[in-house]
Amino acid sequence: MIRVVFFDLDDTIVDTSRLAEMARRNAIENMIRHGLPVDFDIAYSELLELINEYGSNFGRHFDYLLRRLEVPYDPKLVAAGVIAYHNTKFAYLRTVKGARRVLIDLQRSGYRLGIITDGDPIKQWEKILRLELDAYFDEVFISDHLGVRKPHPKIFRRALRGMGVEPDEAVMVGDRLYSDIYGAKNVGMRTIWFRYGKYASRELDYLEYADFTMRSLEELPEILRGLRSEEETRSDQEVHAD
Amino acid sequence: MIRVVFFDLDDTIVDTSRLAEMARRNAIENMIRHGLPVDFDIAYSELLELINEYGSNFGRHFDYLLRRLEVPYDPKLVAAGVIAYHNTKFAYLRTVKGARRVLIDLQRSGYRLGIITDGDPIKQWEKILRLELDAYFDEVFISDHLGVRKPHPKIFRRALRGMGVEPDEAVMVGDRLYSDIYGAKNVGMRTIWFRYGKYASRELDYLEYADFTMRSLEELPEILRGLRSEEETRSDQEVHAD
Repeated sequence: MIRVVFFDLDDTIVDTSRLAEMARRNAIENMIRHGLPVDFDIAYSELLELINEYGSNFGRHFDYLLRRLEVPYDPKLVAAGVIAYHNTKFAYLRTVKGARRVLIDLQRSGYRLGIITDGDPIKQWEKILRLELDAYFDEVFISDHLGVRKPHPKIFRRALRGMGVEPDEAVMVGDRLYSDIYGAKNVGMRTIWFRYGKYASRELDYLEYADFTMRSLEELPEILRGLRSEEETRSDQEVHAD
Repeated sequence: MIRVVFFDLDDTIVDTSRLAEMARRNAIENMIRHGLPVDFDIAYSELLELINEYGSNFGRHFDYLLRRLEVPYDPKLVAAGVIAYHNTKFAYLRTVKGARRVLIDLQRSGYRLGIITDGDPIKQWEKILRLELDAYFDEVFISDHLGVRKPHPKIFRRALRGMGVEPDEAVMVGDRLYSDIYGAKNVGMRTIWFRYGKYASRELDYLEYADFTMRSLEELPEILRGLRSEEETRSDQEVHAD
């Protein structure tokens, strides 16, 4: 029987892609407003390339952007980027549509909830606490804190042990077919692919590892009810088989 | 004749000590709210000690605070500190009373204005741009960007050269007797000590380097008018002496 529902954080509970896009665009706009002598489209695509190469948690995006654009270093321009980025980030920090209602619904139905996420632990907790999501979850497992990344089995096994359940008692919900879905299936969990955000049409090679696919988080309670009645049917059959 | 007025930034134009105190207190409060098992006074005084030892621009205050308090590392607690610190910082980011009025007054009187400040260049620009102070100043000189700190003569000479004036054509206004007042006097500038904030009763050994002392920034235009008429009297006397 399913007792625990694990969620990925970014683009599953928190609407991260939207936030990041708006924050990056506004950062470039503000840098140009304060004198960056570069066309918006050029600067923005250069920033995306840089983030792609150095990762989204690299601490010196705007500094390196100036280098790539061959603009002399100017702390004023970097500050303009940082300010607009932070302001926009906080303005767009929101849960995915329906997330809170779904979390409350699942808690009422008796599921325990957890988060399994990659990323910088302080930044991930910052999103959780700013949105006051901590009360919904029994445990938060952040892979970087354990020295591995999804889909490494270690993070999923650690999460199952932390919640005191077997793999077949847990479901993983996430937007990434490779790290979330393949990773969780690999250790024996049931998987629900949330087809949302920038990964909605990527990593489709791993689609076979998804037991269910949903386009809205609000479909989740129905999918779990389906899983529960499927289990009840199976256990009835087992009783009859005796 | 005085043509240029230089200002220190922190606790001269921007009300920094107040902001920092409120932000640090709220950070500790929020860490306790999220489970830090330590008394407020103990945690706060430990944080102040830490900042004193590692400097205010050290990037890992809350992380190191947990170490000092012998509390196991928990990214949630660090995030709680970071969130409250940033929110409070932005809420209390204000100019010193009367600053904008004084800056406008001086510009109307024909002075050119500059900033000479220590500190992390991006953070200093962040304050200037968030408060939209950049339009008031012709130039901003940040010592860290030049590899020296006040009272090193290099930063003051660089600022004078940047504004195209001789030392006796410039005044330095700042809250620190050592870095601002001694430093500027040392290269031949006139000096006005703004007795304000946490340094109001410190470094008094350097008081002799202050030509004027003021308790409110709003006294500045009057002091400069005094300086101007003193110069006019002197040049009159020089004419008569011929």
